[in-house]
Amino acid sequence: MSATMMALVKENRSSGLSLKQLPIPQAGPNDVLIKVRSSSICGTDLHIYKWDEWAESAVVTPNVIGHEFAGIVEAVGSDVTSVRPGDYVSAEGHVVCGVCRACRSGNAHVCPNTRSFGITIPGCFAEYAVVPATNIVRNDPRIPSELACLQDPLGNAVQSVMAGDITGKSVAVIGAGPIGLMACAVAKACGASSVIAADINDFRLRMAKTMGADALINSATEKLSERLKALTGGEGVEVLLEMSGHPDAIREGLEGTANAGRVALLGIPTRGVELDLSRSIIFKGLRVDGITGRRMYTTWFQVKGLLESGRIDLSPLVTHRFRLDQYEEAFELVRSGNCGKVVFTH
Amino acid sequence: MSATMMALVKENRSSGLSLKQLPIPQAGPNDVLIKVRSSSICGTDLHIYKWDEWAESAVVTPNVIGHEFAGIVEAVGSDVTSVRPGDYVSAEGHVVCGVCRACRSGNAHVCPNTRSFGITIPGCFAEYAVVPATNIVRNDPRIPSELACLQDPLGNAVQSVMAGDITGKSVAVIGAGPIGLMACAVAKACGASSVIAADINDFRLRMAKTMGADALINSATEKLSERLKALTGGEGVEVLLEMSGHPDAIREGLEGTANAGRVALLGIPTRGVELDLSRSIIFKGLRVDGITGRRMYTTWFQVKGLLESGRIDLSPLVTHRFRLDQYEEAFELVRSGNCGKVVFTH
Amino acid sequence: MSATMMALVKENRSSGLSLKQLPIPQAGPNDVLIKVRSSSICGTDLHIYKWDEWAESAVVTPNVIGHEFAGIVEAVGSDVTSVRPGDYVSAEGHVVCGVCRACRSGNAHVCPNTRSFGITIPGCFAEYAVVPATNIVRNDPRIPSELACLQDPLGNAVQSVMAGDITGKSVAVIGAGPIGLMACAVAKACGASSVIAADINDFRLRMAKTMGADALINSATEKLSERLKALTGGEGVEVLLEMSGHPDAIREGLEGTANAGRVALLGIPTRGVELDLSRSIIFKGLRVDGITGRRMYTTWFQVKGLLESGRIDLSPLVTHRFRLDQYEEAFELVRSGNCGKVVFTH
Amino acid sequence: MSATMMALVKENRSSGLSLKQLPIPQAGPNDVLIKVRSSSICGTDLHIYKWDEWAESAVVTPNVIGHEFAGIVEAVGSDVTSVRPGDYVSAEGHVVCGVCRACRSGNAHVCPNTRSFGITIPGCFAEYAVVPATNIVRNDPRIPSELACLQDPLGNAVQSVMAGDITGKSVAVIGAGPIGLMACAVAKACGASSVIAADINDFRLRMAKTMGADALINSATEKLSERLKALTGGEGVEVLLEMSGHPDAIREGLEGTANAGRVALLGIPTRGVELDLSRSIIFKGLRVDGITGRRMYTTWFQVKGLLESGRIDLSPLVTHRFRLDQYEEAFELVRSGNCGKVVFTH
Repeated sequence: MSATMMALVKENRSSGLSLKQLPIPQAGPNDVLIKVRSSSICGTDLHIYKWDEWAESAVVTPNVIGHEFAGIVEAVGSDVTSVRPGDYVSAEGHVVCGVCRACRSGNAHVCPNTRSFGITIPGCFAEYAVVPATNIVRNDPRIPSELACLQDPLGNAVQSVMAGDITGKSVAVIGAGPIGLMACAVAKACGASSVIAADINDFRLRMAKTMGADALINSATEKLSERLKALTGGEGVEVLLEMSGHPDAIREGLEGTANAGRVALLGIPTRGVELDLSRSIIFKGLRVDGITGRRMYTTWFQVKGLLESGRIDLSPLVTHRFRLDQYEEAFELVRSGNCGKVVFTH
Repeated sequence: MSATMMALVKENRSSGLSLKQLPIPQAGPNDVLIKVRSSSICGTDLHIYKWDEWAESAVVTPNVIGHEFAGIVEAVGSDVTSVRPGDYVSAEGHVVCGVCRACRSGNAHVCPNTRSFGITIPGCFAEYAVVPATNIVRNDPRIPSELACLQDPLGNAVQSVMAGDITGKSVAVIGAGPIGLMACAVAKACGASSVIAADINDFRLRMAKTMGADALINSATEKLSERLKALTGGEGVEVLLEMSGHPDAIREGLEGTANAGRVALLGIPTRGVELDLSRSIIFKGLRVDGITGRRMYTTWFQVKGLLESGRIDLSPLVTHRFRLDQYEEAFELVRSGNCGKVVFTH
Repeated sequence: MSATMMALVKENRSSGLSLKQLPIPQAGPNDVLIKVRSSSICGTDLHIYKWDEWAESAVVTPNVIGHEFAGIVEAVGSDVTSVRPGDYVSAEGHVVCGVCRACRSGNAHVCPNTRSFGITIPGCFAEYAVVPATNIVRNDPRIPSELACLQDPLGNAVQSVMAGDITGKSVAVIGAGPIGLMACAVAKACGASSVIAADINDFRLRMAKTMGADALINSATEKLSERLKALTGGEGVEVLLEMSGHPDAIREGLEGTANAGRVALLGIPTRGVELDLSRSIIFKGLRVDGITGRRMYTTWFQVKGLLESGRIDLSPLVTHRFRLDQYEEAFELVRSGNCGKVVFTH
Repeated sequence: MSATMMALVKENRSSGLSLKQLPIPQAGPNDVLIKVRSSSICGTDLHIYKWDEWAESAVVTPNVIGHEFAGIVEAVGSDVTSVRPGDYVSAEGHVVCGVCRACRSGNAHVCPNTRSFGITIPGCFAEYAVVPATNIVRNDPRIPSELACLQDPLGNAVQSVMAGDITGKSVAVIGAGPIGLMACAVAKACGASSVIAADINDFRLRMAKTMGADALINSATEKLSERLKALTGGEGVEVLLEMSGHPDAIREGLEGTANAGRVALLGIPTRGVELDLSRSIIFKGLRVDGITGRRMYTTWFQVKGLLESGRIDLSPLVTHRFRLDQYEEAFELVRSGNCGKVVFTH
């Protein structure tokens, strides 16, 4: 193993990234050193690239960014027994304390002491990465690394879909970005009776069709709430998966949800959202779940069960591949929105 | 049975009520005629009295108002077999269609075809009332009618408390009106480890103490979110029961709720509420349930189980009693807020 | 409408059935008269034909038997508003009281006052049948009647599969009779990661493969518990759907279930079953659900959502079709076990 | 700290125990050394004392026995940050692997790689004990150690009660040993409408009354199923907590459970139990949960919430106190059954 590696680094608290040569990190006694094979760009990475308000508040610098990956274990720390060199792995990016009430009661995904891989601790847009052994998830060798690296966002989609019943129900996915597209596939694989995808971008709506959506709504040209009702015999959808974060889409989505329906909020609004709580939530008897991360590790078992059995196929989602040194081009493409998942091949 | 009765009627679509002599209503083939013994004034009745925007949109006139009652069955329709004259009963006030998806899947409380007793069909502030036999709930003779008539709002409290786990958890009740006060008693009876009540009215906070609250917050003088955290070791409450409908209270309550917490929204905001969904709900992984009515009839069985076993005692809640012809005085008192439940003795 | 019809009747409390000419039944005020288009033979019907101990204890005679059907509404009672002549319908066969605790708390499928269509009240192996309007379920015209009549047993399968989480989990179906075969399709459509079918009949195992099973076990020649473990990396299956009712299969199935697994018991043992509760259930922390009928009507909505969306395809399951007057041949075939579903075309 | 300590040891694989002088154990890097203040005798300890079939199959010798305790942290291992010397603590006795599917999906209590404190690894009937830091639970200083040491069995009771809804429901506790007695208190504190306790020992039935039971059944002289139905208006109990492990009690308890009821099996039958699954579980639509250990650590939070808030009071349960060198007398008393909890004061 050479003593240095190339890594994509946020150096300064302003726009842009740098490709730098860094020492290969050392695995502590409970850690695992991984040679990264594939990594993928998340919307979060674009926020860090552009350096917006959220990034300013949340990101530690300098830091190697990136949190979605698959790779091969290169070395393990002295106390690690559950993972071995040569294992083909990915990892949960939330590094949690393990001792707080959230961690100890099945809610580690919202541990208030979380350190975030690629955000507050060094990540995976690099030749090598270090993660705690507790966070390692073993991959099926039949899944290529450019798909295995997508398990982190797939977990967001799965947690959203599986926060309640889905079988035989009508489901709307609002926002057909990568997680929304995955949610279409997951909802279909879990027995939703109809999957409706909404977005304002026709490229993404076509991808939604490929990923399993039964009906499409371009919410730039159609009134979302009315179309949702029209597609469900006037009742509204039984499950709303909100993945856009846009205030109008949230309001229209709630309006188009049936009484006693379920709503998963995953898209992140960047400002306050005014809601008519009485009409939209209370009198309808809706249930609304805030979704972040992946349940540790219930969601991962669901992810692996769906992916490794072939119940869902993510391959149409990977539209572009780059080397790490092509990062400017890759981020420019993600910024355009005219892509599915953009993957770095290491 | 005399041919006429006295009834409290909303005649005109403006403020006020009238006490009128009306024919005693007839029970249809599937209905039950009840001689009302006790009825109680709900916040909804005050809205109808004052005739605000909600009342204008929701209430049919002319109509006998009132929906909380207990009484004795006087007569039953020709097809009724489940109820008999002489039975001591109360009733669910949502008269539902029984055939829609909501009704047929355990969500009749949000049936879109609901007719509402005392709002869109004649109610119980009268000597006699008619309800469908399907809506009748039999009362234990040991429960006096002035407490049995409270089962409708008690059901709101019970549905809110029981929408998720409560045992061993910290619970905040925001808004110590009658339903909030009942929620304090219910949460305590169901094993909440601490019950925190918040209001801006000291009279009601004292009543909350009587009904079982372990800690009180006057949110006019104390910052609600900070006190909720201070009372829970910095974590925030695990269960938030929002019964005020006030936008600031909702925002402060969410801020004072722990990660992975549960929120029941029952209080009805009269205008839009701006929320920081990302910070308040999504990143925290909260679950928010809109609560309306009572689950038909799961909630009623819980209500009866708690009330008839003595696990909760509602008697301190009934602070004032009136005859129907004293209605002006009764409504004035409810308007002041310096009371618990106000009951009509028929 | 002619005044008489042909019907398959259990006349005497002994083996056999009779095809008889009977008056067309009348719909009461709350009932619906249906012209039956297709009906199908259930294992229960074979028990009635053969007249075993269960039949002696449960069946009323004389009675028209049969409870799985689809047809066209011919007439409705005077008080019926939710169904119209010409509607294409099937029906839930449990006619329940509607007023007991079970009925009023979402458990009507175990109402202690149930009357059973085709068992204790007249059924559907006839040209016409009468059912209460409350029990009617409307069919999608795109579903042919020979598949729509299968919704009753499909509901048994769906209730079993959906009694808990299934997504991404390993599932074993023990007993590949018609309901077991349907359960294979349902589990697959709901995202099970692997579906394992076990039976002692190779014809049925081949059908299980057609219906979606990923792995097959002939439990006459292979040790069931060992094979279940071998197919799941030594852990055992996460979900066991017991549809054989055979004591050895139940014991072996429990032995082959993973810790914290879920078991649905649907197959009906005809005698006592000795279980090592400590080892099989308690120390494993299993959850075991007794399954009967269909949840009214949550299960029906799931059934329709899966069937009408094409998520599951039952057409390979219908292997034989007969006229009602060929009933001897039809029952003989069912008795042999070398068939899928056997349907009467009326 | 002296270099040796007194400990109660199972030396030989036959009846009896020995009080021996042993070296004080060392805490490994992730462990905690505790000075034990109070410990209590579990039924399991009696099995080990008597050395029955279960003990022969499960216990490692020689071993310090005992697993229920409270004490003060004396020292912590080099990598421990979550616990400090001087902390007042108890501990979960299941030492689990943390990496298997059960551990990673909220089911660590049935981890197949569990090592058991006081059974397969050294326990707490000693002056000092070592446990992994992950297993430590911090105690409220207001709870005396002779009650804090009871949290382990209290957790069994809480897991049984809280495996499903309890509020407003009728609950039967079959077997009024220490865990059954605790279950009476817990069910009452969680809003059960009636708590029925059954046993064959009148001393224990009187204790059940003290702990909150509303009705008592001596099942040696009364027919359990009939009494359960008589006490519930003929319906049967809605929740059955089976804590006797006796085959007849299990059968009678199931017979006395209402349709759609819930059953928790915690008592350990020592031989096969023949059940009429069709009649007892399937046609009734019962749910049966096997209960072992405590959910890690959801149950512990419920335990602490109930205990520290005073919702339940365990003090009447501690009937006898001994020094460790009085162990023969203490075990003799437990064997007699005429006691509540028997505590060692260290």
